[in-house]
Amino acid sequence: MDRKTSPPRPVTVADVARRAEVSKATAARVLGGYGPVSEEVKLRVQAAAKALDYRPNELARSVSTGKSGTIGIVVGDIENAFFGIAVRSISDTAHRHGFNVILANSGEEVEAEKAALKVLVGKRVDGLIVTPADNRTIAHLRDIVRSRRPLVLFDRPIEGLAADVVATDDRDAAFAATMRLVAAGHRRLAYVTALNAEPPVFTGMEQLYTSSVKARVDGFLAACRAAGIDGPERGICLAGSAPAGQQRASIERLLSGETPPTAILASDSLVAFEIFKAARTLGRGIPDDLSLVSFYDAEWTSVTTPPISVIDQPVYDMGTQAAELLIARINGASPPARHCVLPTRFIERGSIGAPRRMMAAI
Amino acid sequence: MDRKTSPPRPVTVADVARRAEVSKATAARVLGGYGPVSEEVKLRVQAAAKALDYRPNELARSVSTGKSGTIGIVVGDIENAFFGIAVRSISDTAHRHGFNVILANSGEEVEAEKAALKVLVGKRVDGLIVTPADNRTIAHLRDIVRSRRPLVLFDRPIEGLAADVVATDDRDAAFAATMRLVAAGHRRLAYVTALNAEPPVFTGMEQLYTSSVKARVDGFLAACRAAGIDGPERGICLAGSAPAGQQRASIERLLSGETPPTAILASDSLVAFEIFKAARTLGRGIPDDLSLVSFYDAEWTSVTTPPISVIDQPVYDMGTQAAELLIARINGASPPARHCVLPTRFIERGSIGAPRRMMAAI
Repeated sequence: MDRKTSPPRPVTVADVARRAEVSKATAARVLGGYGPVSEEVKLRVQAAAKALDYRPNELARSVSTGKSGTIGIVVGDIENAFFGIAVRSISDTAHRHGFNVILANSGEEVEAEKAALKVLVGKRVDGLIVTPADNRTIAHLRDIVRSRRPLVLFDRPIEGLAADVVATDDRDAAFAATMRLVAAGHRRLAYVTALNAEPPVFTGMEQLYTSSVKARVDGFLAACRAAGIDGPERGICLAGSAPAGQQRASIERLLSGETPPTAILASDSLVAFEIFKAARTLGRGIPDDLSLVSFYDAEWTSVTTPPISVIDQPVYDMGTQAAELLIARINGASPPARHCVLPTRFIERGSIGAPRRMMAAI
Repeated sequence: MDRKTSPPRPVTVADVARRAEVSKATAARVLGGYGPVSEEVKLRVQAAAKALDYRPNELARSVSTGKSGTIGIVVGDIENAFFGIAVRSISDTAHRHGFNVILANSGEEVEAEKAALKVLVGKRVDGLIVTPADNRTIAHLRDIVRSRRPLVLFDRPIEGLAADVVATDDRDAAFAATMRLVAAGHRRLAYVTALNAEPPVFTGMEQLYTSSVKARVDGFLAACRAAGIDGPERGICLAGSAPAGQQRASIERLLSGETPPTAILASDSLVAFEIFKAARTLGRGIPDDLSLVSFYDAEWTSVTTPPISVIDQPVYDMGTQAAELLIARINGASPPARHCVLPTRFIERGSIGAPRRMMAAI
């Protein structure tokens, strides 16, 4: 390390000015590239900046342009491949438009989401893409909208919030997938999500605190009712978000009950993965003892025996659209809030079969 | 939206001062919580700040404390679960210590890595955790070290760079895994990595531009040589980083050659996934026709038939250590650069078998 030229704190314009023996205002003019200044002074300031390894404070620079050139993203769970691809896609689009991306993870905790937004706003991002963790707690998102900082909600709309939304046809997709299970002969169906509830029992739609899950459960229940299935609400399982403990236990309990479901629609691929493993542990064959369909075409679903039928979500396209809506707004577009719904695609693999007869006798 | 009180640009201290009818310096004192000011003026400024929805500029605040309370991370590929868990772990540790985390993705492109570092430094992060994409291009990392901003290299050491490192025993792990394949009777072994080369042929260690892969290949070759295998370099496959096209083609070419390998060690779980799928496409059974071992215990590896033997890397612990080293330095510790090597663990599953006799006759 070079002790002579590197102070332990970031080098400031004042440091450069001192070394160049000019006023701070003059140094700022040279470093910011504005205002008149003689060639000799300019070279002196530039030499001082180089010697001190001065790095422009992008925040300060943004004061003049009004833009920081940065987009902030807050995702629910960066360990989930769904969000990994979304971030990749948003970054690709942002870079094409000359924007950088900084990212924060809420871990699906609304308090962490608030803190992350505060940090990103403090870093003066030009706009935000957020997957809201909890549609019951949105004052911080309303604040963003009120401050006129462009905001796009990703995957999860929030009713009454005047922000752009990019999501998929969650209700229709769940309805159609449930209908496939019904058509295969199933009458005891379950919908399993990673949402938390205390106690972990479904008591009503108001418990479903992310809008995407709410829409999916709504589609599931509507399909069950359309098929004349009695009390389909009993099949809703809020398995919790901690795969290692609580979630696994909830799923094993569901599968080991007196009248276990013969078919399950899983709300995401992480929950589906736990269901797949629990079925194996309990010796329940797929699809002979249990049919399984999952949201999201995670890589593991195509290489299991049998491979799992999935609702494929166009994640990469969702990310592209979200970034493009956001960047258009950052660049001055101001249409009313838009709600883009992208279609999903059902991928039929080998995990749906007919229910065994006499399952009730288990 | 409330047009009256929300200007379209961020509210500044000057706006607050104007509304409170005080000088900018006075407003700054109140908002920054420093310097003497009368109670009446304080209340007036606070009321103005509230009315305008003023949000403190964290960067400006950091000028007084010297800390922004933020850590920057640059990972190679956020779509890779390895990095997803690393980010989760770093975030957990950072939050415990009162730091926020912002993240950027390099996509394993060194130019994107440089741009990301520039953004994060511009946002005045207190320290950085980076997985360098290319150990041949590191001037930007040297600049970070020279500026005294704490830096931890994650998973990939760089020789001669005075930064903390958290990595695993890559060479030993590859050596031991290769020895298991040798012990099962294999003599035609391949090592497949996602690194790029043009043309895509291994010509020497200097092609291996990430240190972790270099260490692993070194371990692989050393084990082959210890087993008396001739010309093991021929088994090194630089399959490229684009799974959809080039990588898949490289792997299919490797498996369809005249003398295909009977055993493969995969450098990461994404490459292993492509190998698994290619073997299936080509009708090569695992482990009967092909033995496979992969670095990283990705979720899919445990649910395939057969499940895949893996080198389990303690990613979560690596993230914790990296964050703790970094935060200690941010908080003033200044020991010489440390190199922490965490042990990996071999998980034996069902993907190693004996090679078929007469493979050469294929």
